[in-house]
Amino acid sequence: MSEKHISSAVIKRLPRYYRYLGDLLENEVVRISSKELSERMNVTASQIRQDLNNFGGFGQQGYGYNVEHLYKEIAKILGLENEHSVIIIGVGNLGQAIANYHDFKKRGFVLSGLFDVNPDIIGKVVNGVTVKHTDELAEFIKENDIDIAAITVPKEKAPKIALEVSNLGVKAIWNFAPTDLKLPDSVIVENVHLADSLMRVSYSINARNKSKKDD
Amino acid sequence: MSEKHISSAVIKRLPRYYRYLGDLLENEVVRISSKELSERMNVTASQIRQDLNNFGGFGQQGYGYNVEHLYKEIAKILGLENEHSVIIIGVGNLGQAIANYHDFKKRGFVLSGLFDVNPDIIGKVVNGVTVKHTDELAEFIKENDIDIAAITVPKEKAPKIALEVSNLGVKAIWNFAPTDLKLPDSVIVENVHLADSLMRVSYSINARNKSKKDD
Repeated sequence: MSEKHISSAVIKRLPRYYRYLGDLLENEVVRISSKELSERMNVTASQIRQDLNNFGGFGQQGYGYNVEHLYKEIAKILGLENEHSVIIIGVGNLGQAIANYHDFKKRGFVLSGLFDVNPDIIGKVVNGVTVKHTDELAEFIKENDIDIAAITVPKEKAPKIALEVSNLGVKAIWNFAPTDLKLPDSVIVENVHLADSLMRVSYSINARNKSKKDD
Repeated sequence: MSEKHISSAVIKRLPRYYRYLGDLLENEVVRISSKELSERMNVTASQIRQDLNNFGGFGQQGYGYNVEHLYKEIAKILGLENEHSVIIIGVGNLGQAIANYHDFKKRGFVLSGLFDVNPDIIGKVVNGVTVKHTDELAEFIKENDIDIAAITVPKEKAPKIALEVSNLGVKAIWNFAPTDLKLPDSVIVENVHLADSLMRVSYSINARNKSKKDD
């Protein structure tokens, strides 16, 4: 199974499956048919069967899927059975929100360090971790094996600091700054562009208003 | 031009064009060739020409694009020349981060109301707006024309409150709760699933580690 190539479209959908299966587990659901899962997830049952067939024959005719088994298999594919160490650079409201997000800990993401340049924030303890000065980043990353750096600094500062931590060996950048980072190919970049997301909302409102006027 | 159908793939890319053109404007760049823009955006020049041709013939052979003109045209398509009123439900760290995000104001998103149930937060002033009790939501929405409700409450509370404000006439839900909302088709839903995003990072780290081991 581990040798099988899984398409990027399927991979994009995996976190959503994982989320739904986690909810079912919490509600002590033992098994579910693709039809039921399809109704909950608003995806066709055949799409679900196709997607989940990538992970072996967990579905059985007349039985459906064993929720816990499938949940654990998807966790493996997503690499969630390994712990990932995370640092957050920029401990404003957004950085603190991420630091306190308890879902992350549940999924194996361990908050290892918090960094800022603001003297009012340095020394503050957020979710058990003391905020250090950004000047200490290099030493900290050398001494600790850091998987992920969340970047929540202003956009002007993001490219330089993202490149710096990438060169220090951080594997992935989780970028919240409203800019696209140019980093070595060896570094994984995942963007959360909130302003882009809000502009899509604006577009949809505008498009609906127009189509109403045209009626 | 307003009659032309624009594909959803192009629309998804528009906020990114808008962001890049905004950066160029800030740097007082008057015009840019599709080649230059392509290098900055890491998209092929032909993709850029194709995308931007949707908005009329702004590009001229040998001249390139007039940055300000194109920026304004995309703003129109995205509905950014209209103001949008926004309320935020859930004024924890994430809600406060959104409330203070100054990029939003710049793009015509006006913070109209903040709501929470926590007595320690109610009455607090964030970015000039006083946090009210969630009990006051219904009256507030009836008296004010609200376009967008950002939902930053815990996932258990999100479905009920999103449905409530939808029924009160809010046009769009900007959902940060880690759950998918089932709402009437008349309501626009844009999800920001941070946990899904982080799981994609985990997947990529895992996949790269595996391929290294296979080498």
